[in-house]
Amino acid sequence: MWRDLAAIGKNKAGGGYRRYAWTGADTDCRAWFRAQAESRGLAYESDRNGNQWAWLGVTSAEEVARGNAVVTGSHLDSVPDGGAFDGPLGVVSAFAALDELRAKGAHFRVPLGLVNFTDEEGARFGLACVGSRLSVGGLTQKQAYELRDAEGVSLPQAMERAGHDPDGIGPDPDRLARIGAFVELHIEQGRALADPGLLAAAAAGDREAAAAGTAGHAVGVASAIWPHGRWRFDFRGEANHAGTTRLEDRRDPMLTYAGTVLAAREEAERAGALATFGKVAVEPNGVNAIPSVVRGWLDSRAPDEETLAAVVAGIESAAALRGRADGVEVGVTRESHTGTVEFAHDLRDRIARRLGGAPLLPTGAGHDAGILSASVPTAMLYVRNPTGVSHSPAESAEEDDCVAGVRALADVLEGLAC
Amino acid sequence: MWRDLAAIGKNKAGGGYRRYAWTGADTDCRAWFRAQAESRGLAYESDRNGNQWAWLGVTSAEEVARGNAVVTGSHLDSVPDGGAFDGPLGVVSAFAALDELRAKGAHFRVPLGLVNFTDEEGARFGLACVGSRLSVGGLTQKQAYELRDAEGVSLPQAMERAGHDPDGIGPDPDRLARIGAFVELHIEQGRALADPGLLAAAAAGDREAAAAGTAGHAVGVASAIWPHGRWRFDFRGEANHAGTTRLEDRRDPMLTYAGTVLAAREEAERAGALATFGKVAVEPNGVNAIPSVVRGWLDSRAPDEETLAAVVAGIESAAALRGRADGVEVGVTRESHTGTVEFAHDLRDRIARRLGGAPLLPTGAGHDAGILSASVPTAMLYVRNPTGVSHSPAESAEEDDCVAGVRALADVLEGLAC
Repeated sequence: MWRDLAAIGKNKAGGGYRRYAWTGADTDCRAWFRAQAESRGLAYESDRNGNQWAWLGVTSAEEVARGNAVVTGSHLDSVPDGGAFDGPLGVVSAFAALDELRAKGAHFRVPLGLVNFTDEEGARFGLACVGSRLSVGGLTQKQAYELRDAEGVSLPQAMERAGHDPDGIGPDPDRLARIGAFVELHIEQGRALADPGLLAAAAAGDREAAAAGTAGHAVGVASAIWPHGRWRFDFRGEANHAGTTRLEDRRDPMLTYAGTVLAAREEAERAGALATFGKVAVEPNGVNAIPSVVRGWLDSRAPDEETLAAVVAGIESAAALRGRADGVEVGVTRESHTGTVEFAHDLRDRIARRLGGAPLLPTGAGHDAGILSASVPTAMLYVRNPTGVSHSPAESAEEDDCVAGVRALADVLEGLAC
Repeated sequence: MWRDLAAIGKNKAGGGYRRYAWTGADTDCRAWFRAQAESRGLAYESDRNGNQWAWLGVTSAEEVARGNAVVTGSHLDSVPDGGAFDGPLGVVSAFAALDELRAKGAHFRVPLGLVNFTDEEGARFGLACVGSRLSVGGLTQKQAYELRDAEGVSLPQAMERAGHDPDGIGPDPDRLARIGAFVELHIEQGRALADPGLLAAAAAGDREAAAAGTAGHAVGVASAIWPHGRWRFDFRGEANHAGTTRLEDRRDPMLTYAGTVLAAREEAERAGALATFGKVAVEPNGVNAIPSVVRGWLDSRAPDEETLAAVVAGIESAAALRGRADGVEVGVTRESHTGTVEFAHDLRDRIARRLGGAPLLPTGAGHDAGILSASVPTAMLYVRNPTGVSHSPAESAEEDDCVAGVRALADVLEGLAC
């Protein structure tokens, strides 16, 4: 199962994955999901937003109406040159956990759903969790229609080319109403499980987790997701010849960008938050031309909304100050924002108890589980990541820990659904 | 003539030109050159390196062997989103000057050549003046075969696709030996002619020019080209998740890049030189991924070799220092270097006198005339640029000044060839 999936969308040069929503690699991943569902006799469906579902035991409208289905899954798309585990581990573990429960003859009291949410990473259209956001109504059809990739292809065009009808995208309350609990298993994107000494730092703002400790745990349970967002900074100067324009005649937006990158790091350090410029686009991007425009994307996250707002405001004012000195116009656009997610406490605690006191961890990473938590009781399991590296080909997890993750997920599903 | 050319390779959105070597736009420009040559009954040839020539009066081997041809021209390719004048003004003025001399019944004592050098800007393959460098032997066939564009297409592949046989590229001493003098007309890429007050600054290192003054001159004569070069800085860190990697666990090459951009400006200011980072490439370039690699290209120029070397060394050590602090590996590769060009003094002075004491100007910009000056007596004329802006759609010249440029070029050609 894992082997078939591992070959899809792998960049031969760097070893990373390039599985962007509605591309060929994504279509191959979707075909894999469908084949896995059908080979297990599950009822397969692709919903209006392109999220894929595989249902066990949904046999009647009354059953659906009860709204007590237990759902697990994650996503199959990747960031540019991403790792093998971020997303796929949760989907593969979902199928594997079902296999394990069936092998031991478990009887399901309620329907079980397995899901692959589409376009979680937002690598192509710049907005994360598009599939789940559309379903909960956090992203409107109109907003989604305006999303474009780097080549100018719009989201509906991309869907159409991949064979999905974009006319119907939008809120999907009926499907969400079926769900009594959603559990997403995910590789940890930090080192808190691998290095218990780091927990105090990782758990800033989460004393419970700090008190619990993590030594020797292959699996942890999510406590909360930090509020986070993306901001586009447009630095507009004046294109000119790099070899003939005197320094004092320049309006060079690369200088303002550089100053803002360094200011972002300082603001984040000061506040105990995170701030990253990971993406930049330069016009005209010629060696001997002073740029006319530099666009930089800020990703920022913090333990609470107030801190996040203060960090971004600090970066904005540093950019504006530097821009005035450089003769460069600075525009800032918030492209996305997700508030603090506190996972359902009762579900979370019930799961942690069932797993023998698995540690509770907060995270800076957004997930479909975070988006869904507004509509559905939601929980997350994390599997230990020895290096903490994620969004990179170097992302890894020990086989034993992955097996422990599947066992823990099966255990949780058994507790909820059997 | 100007109107036909003006439509080629124009980017509709920004109004700038995208005429990169061996692309469709370049092929159209080349067809334009050939048509202009043939409509005037000139002998057209494309040489082994793809430079285009149009000859008047080359009728016998003996005439060729005399080596007294007078050649004028420039280039037709552009930087990304470049202006209409940089390059084309020199080629259009060459044809227009010939028309003017013929209209007044001038008799040519020696052969006259018009030329379009291929790939002057280096926008596609990263190396400027490829056509003239190959011809003088400053770039070997082997080196040229290793040049690749951003899509991985090699220079010989690109030539082949555009219908030029790359097998024969290399030194072309026989063709250069025909030439007794080469004069390139070019738009000025600064404001020295437009604003005489700037001359003292523009002529740092060139007292002659400073003494001559430029008030009221539509046309100037080149004295020298500053030494200049391109250096690629590779900053290698570690890709990781922007939302989960603690600041202290990061090896973020964007920070090192930003620090280096600011250091370059400081070094250049201190030394009275120029230093620009106009091009950057980021891997993986995702909003929520700390980059694994940031590549930045430095363009630097200075009044003399010693200053240039000191500026670049200063930037390199600032980058290394910052890299150590960030846990980022810094590699620096010199991609090109052109030493100081002093244009042939006798030719230069003869031209300035003929033009009634046109001012002498140094420049930081490289030109084919600079490359050729190693093999052939070479001179340049500059046409006034009111804003000084170049390598941008905003590049401009007054029609009267362009006409004055054509008259001056015709005058110079008459003095040299008639």
